Amino acid sequence: MTSTTSQVYPVIWQDDRVLLIEQNRLPNEYTFVEIKCCDDMAHAIKTMIVRGAPAIGVAAAYGMYLGARDIQTESRDEFLNELEKIGKTLGQTRPTAVNLFWAIQRMLNTARKTLGPVEYLKTVLLETAKTINAEDIQTCQAIGDKGLEVLPKNPEKLTLLTHCNAGALATAGYGTALGVVRSAWTAGRLARVYADETRPRLQGAKLTAWECVQEGIPVTLITDNMAAHCMQRGLIHAVVVGADRIAANGDTANKIGTYSLALVAKAHKVPFFVAAPLSTIDFSIGDGSQIPIEERDPVEIYQVGNTRLTAEGVEFYNPAFDVTPAELIAAIITEYGAVVPSELQQFQTKQVV
Amino acid sequence: MTSTTSQVYPVIWQDDRVLLIEQNRLPNEYTFVEIKCCDDMAHAIKTMIVRGAPAIGVAAAYGMYLGARDIQTESRDEFLNELEKIGKTLGQTRPTAVNLFWAIQRMLNTARKTLGPVEYLKTVLLETAKTINAEDIQTCQAIGDKGLEVLPKNPEKLTLLTHCNAGALATAGYGTALGVVRSAWTAGRLARVYADETRPRLQGAKLTAWECVQEGIPVTLITDNMAAHCMQRGLIHAVVVGADRIAANGDTANKIGTYSLALVAKAHKVPFFVAAPLSTIDFSIGDGSQIPIEERDPVEIYQVGNTRLTAEGVEFYNPAFDVTPAELIAAIITEYGAVVPSELQQFQTKQVV
Repeated sequence: MTSTTSQVYPVIWQDDRVLLIEQNRLPNEYTFVEIKCCDDMAHAIKTMIVRGAPAIGVAAAYGMYLGARDIQTESRDEFLNELEKIGKTLGQTRPTAVNLFWAIQRMLNTARKTLGPVEYLKTVLLETAKTINAEDIQTCQAIGDKGLEVLPKNPEKLTLLTHCNAGALATAGYGTALGVVRSAWTAGRLARVYADETRPRLQGAKLTAWECVQEGIPVTLITDNMAAHCMQRGLIHAVVVGADRIAANGDTANKIGTYSLALVAKAHKVPFFVAAPLSTIDFSIGDGSQIPIEERDPVEIYQVGNTRLTAEGVEFYNPAFDVTPAELIAAIITEYGAVVPSELQQFQTKQVV
Repeated sequence: MTSTTSQVYPVIWQDDRVLLIEQNRLPNEYTFVEIKCCDDMAHAIKTMIVRGAPAIGVAAAYGMYLGARDIQTESRDEFLNELEKIGKTLGQTRPTAVNLFWAIQRMLNTARKTLGPVEYLKTVLLETAKTINAEDIQTCQAIGDKGLEVLPKNPEKLTLLTHCNAGALATAGYGTALGVVRSAWTAGRLARVYADETRPRLQGAKLTAWECVQEGIPVTLITDNMAAHCMQRGLIHAVVVGADRIAANGDTANKIGTYSLALVAKAHKVPFFVAAPLSTIDFSIGDGSQIPIEERDPVEIYQVGNTRLTAEGVEFYNPAFDVTPAELIAAIITEYGAVVPSELQQFQTKQVV
């Protein structure tokens, strides 16, 4: 198949600590932050040093291990109690991305199922976090290849539009939506990426455009409100985005603006794809109305760098995500294949927690 | 009726020169720039010290007078030749807004039709510019009141969404889209304005939100990509925007993002209104495909204040306007009344050039 390896790894385990790419400093500085304990990791997730649903899952898994490692007890029951508290702390960092809860739950289940002394449980937890990390990269490569199969056949060289950053930076590596882009690029099927800048946090401008430049993929940056105009002019052949949580019926929570983009794609008959690992699907909820939508600090809207953009006395609304109804989605691309939203249920038995 | 007078006048004739609000410095500084000659005015229009289609028309009319005043001849033919050159210079500043060409043409026609010596022509041209200025304020108040008549009857207190700035700052005063907002506010029919920030130049954040605060109108600022989500949540009862040029069939060129907004409004059955003076309608073109779309410097996308938003090596596309097809527009609100786009033709005989 067409997999290549991205050079960008936002979560790295090394010398008994985690190194996270400081994503708030990109694209100006490419630096790493050392995460030595669970509280550091909770803070890093909350402040979006690490962001993107799958990457948050991997980071939370390591966070669970770091917390576990520091529990001072030889009592298995006490250890499991403490580990649950750590899971709660990490679970309160971001409310929308389901991969966070999935990773925490998987780590908790592993601990509960593993026999042996506490020290052994700790070893197994580290191995599980590393496994979640490695699996995520393989998953993304599979998503990329499965996505390539469902992209439009014409023209040969496609222009793909993406929103926010569902790239290597949002995963353990390779990316979900940008995984499809990478696989298309490697297969010679990609002419160019259009990247929505993605206000208010500008992940498209800061992260997606940066990732594309790193790989030599031609990228055109537009403001979010230009996508419809670009489609009207026939510049876009398909849209590929990531997801923070997908309900059982296929309704998809993703970065604010995704829903708007899905509506304008529909109006232009441009196929709209969601690329996400199975761990993003929350089969416990029937539809998108049950997905909590995080609201973030209005400073994200009224300030860029040192520049205040609006007058005093103005009010703000800053939802970080929106929900795209399943009927606007041509296919959900997972590591097991791409399906129309109504066929998502078939994957339920494959989900490992 | 419900007209009130806005306190904001972006184009002021005083002591043989024009004072323009320096709109690039709002909302942080509320200052004026002195315009003493035609070249100053061309520069001010090009650099968007003054912006907004009707305001550009008023500014261009004064620019024509300033140019006329400085023509050193007593020959009528020579004077008219020079005046045509001045019209060409001013006409090259912004390609999309038709009010610019309308104002230049009206000034030229006035000069051609007026008998008498050159000095008298100059006097008449100044009076004509002042008339265009005064008419624009009256026109906006009429648009506001006509718009109020077609707003949804329920709920009593409406939440209106607007894009960019079609306010007092974009006209001689009172505004077109914000004229409707002002009339609704005065009539007790307005709960709140939602303002799209309007990337890349952020006229919604910088100008519309500022104008609302000046008048005590409650205003919530959102990023452009949040509008669909707000509509999905039932927060928006109608959309009102301005226009830079309207084709004979009602297709409307307005600030980039307007088309996107019209599509998402349609998907939510939220009525979408265009508010503009008759001078914005270009009956010489059949549909929107013939409207030239200005592309501006990509720096508007990649830099805010002193902050660079993206990596080196990224490419950009920066169309300043888009075209909303007539079928997405519930009504076009002019000073003569609000009509569905297909009935626009009835106003052709009323247009004064």
